[in-house]
Amino acid sequence: MISPGDTGDRLLALENRVRLLEDEAAICRVIASWGPAADRADGRAASSLWTDDAVLIAEAMRIEGASGVGDMIDSEGQQALVRQGCAHVQSFPVVQVDGDRATAVNYGRVYLHTNEGFEIWRVSANCWELRRTADGWRVTRRHAHVIDGGPQAQEVLARADKP
Amino acid sequence: MISPGDTGDRLLALENRVRLLEDEAAICRVIASWGPAADRADGRAASSLWTDDAVLIAEAMRIEGASGVGDMIDSEGQQALVRQGCAHVQSFPVVQVDGDRATAVNYGRVYLHTNEGFEIWRVSANCWELRRTADGWRVTRRHAHVIDGGPQAQEVLARADKP
Amino acid sequence: MISPGDTGDRLLALENRVRLLEDEAAICRVIASWGPAADRADGRAASSLWTDDAVLIAEAMRIEGASGVGDMIDSEGQQALVRQGCAHVQSFPVVQVDGDRATAVNYGRVYLHTNEGFEIWRVSANCWELRRTADGWRVTRRHAHVIDGGPQAQEVLARADKP
Repeated sequence: MISPGDTGDRLLALENRVRLLEDEAAICRVIASWGPAADRADGRAASSLWTDDAVLIAEAMRIEGASGVGDMIDSEGQQALVRQGCAHVQSFPVVQVDGDRATAVNYGRVYLHTNEGFEIWRVSANCWELRRTADGWRVTRRHAHVIDGGPQAQEVLARADKP
Repeated sequence: MISPGDTGDRLLALENRVRLLEDEAAICRVIASWGPAADRADGRAASSLWTDDAVLIAEAMRIEGASGVGDMIDSEGQQALVRQGCAHVQSFPVVQVDGDRATAVNYGRVYLHTNEGFEIWRVSANCWELRRTADGWRVTRRHAHVIDGGPQAQEVLARADKP
Repeated sequence: MISPGDTGDRLLALENRVRLLEDEAAICRVIASWGPAADRADGRAASSLWTDDAVLIAEAMRIEGASGVGDMIDSEGQQALVRQGCAHVQSFPVVQVDGDRATAVNYGRVYLHTNEGFEIWRVSANCWELRRTADGWRVTRRHAHVIDGGPQAQEVLARADKP
């Protein structure tokens, strides 16, 4: 026989567990949405994944805010990549949720269309930091570093470890 | 103190949330199952992922029905690819479930084994459409287009946006 | 009106369904954690994903136990790859959980940094076997085989089929 107290405890436990699964799925979805925005140079779709105070760091490049990310994706340089044919593909990440904050570590690859077929233009280590907002999970910081044998990419990958 | 009415509402909400998570996982599983079927030329395994009225569109190619997909995978051309060594790898998708229908947008890559190592034979944008059937989620339509700088692949990627 | 018996049944069903989703997510997480450990030559992080009685098989190579896996990742050969710049990227897998055991079939790719950009060093078929332990899901066996046109990789991929 089940008591009302037990029922309440079990419901609450389930609600917390389901919320964590939903959080992880939503975070994966944000990361999977990056490529389809970047690869058609859609600055509005790309910027909608980021917070206003976000930072995107890739080696020496530093871009500030959702609007800065949108401007980069709308830029002539990005449009030239899209006209050539590019695919920014994200691997499925190691996600760690801590309340309203999360990190996700994964690999990015950029494939470019060329006259001879496809080349791999870039392989990078990524650490995404995200925050739960009224509109869902958004990226607050992404640190990407090309896999070049140096320590920076390895430091990014080390963030996959549990704290 | 928890009332029976509250309990019923919370159970129902949980059941709906869990079902959505299960749907998304099942859809990801269908997509992840494509490569292992294609890369051993197993037409039966490949066709089992599709509905009888499905359509597979890739540039100018159009294949009709689960049996058509199975025939393609069993074909001499596909068997030649498998004998050379091929890997049809799908990236994790942006899934949107709407009742008994869903879409999933992702990237496909085909790696080929050669005497000099591996080459990237194809990178494509994909929009999968799926339907819930008595046997689980099945593909009703897949539109793939090579990433070649043209607008068709970008239109496929745009379907990752929320409707 | 909801009866206590119904409530207990529905809670139990939900708990089982949520547990399966959590299991699948945990298994994906173990597999996604392999690359970030391997690509910084962190034997401790790599070995923590395996059981003491685990086996890693890759073509003719056979490595025994979590400590054997850790030693391989700490080895001079692996450190040389890391200094060159390597990315061991896992595709999202087809997971099948059966109680406290599971299998997951996917593709691995190793990208290497070179003076001319990136090359694909290896594409492999993988079947991971996992066991639920007191510390979570751990790998008990991984069979990897390079995609080379031979039957071994196809046999690995065939394990994605439902039993």
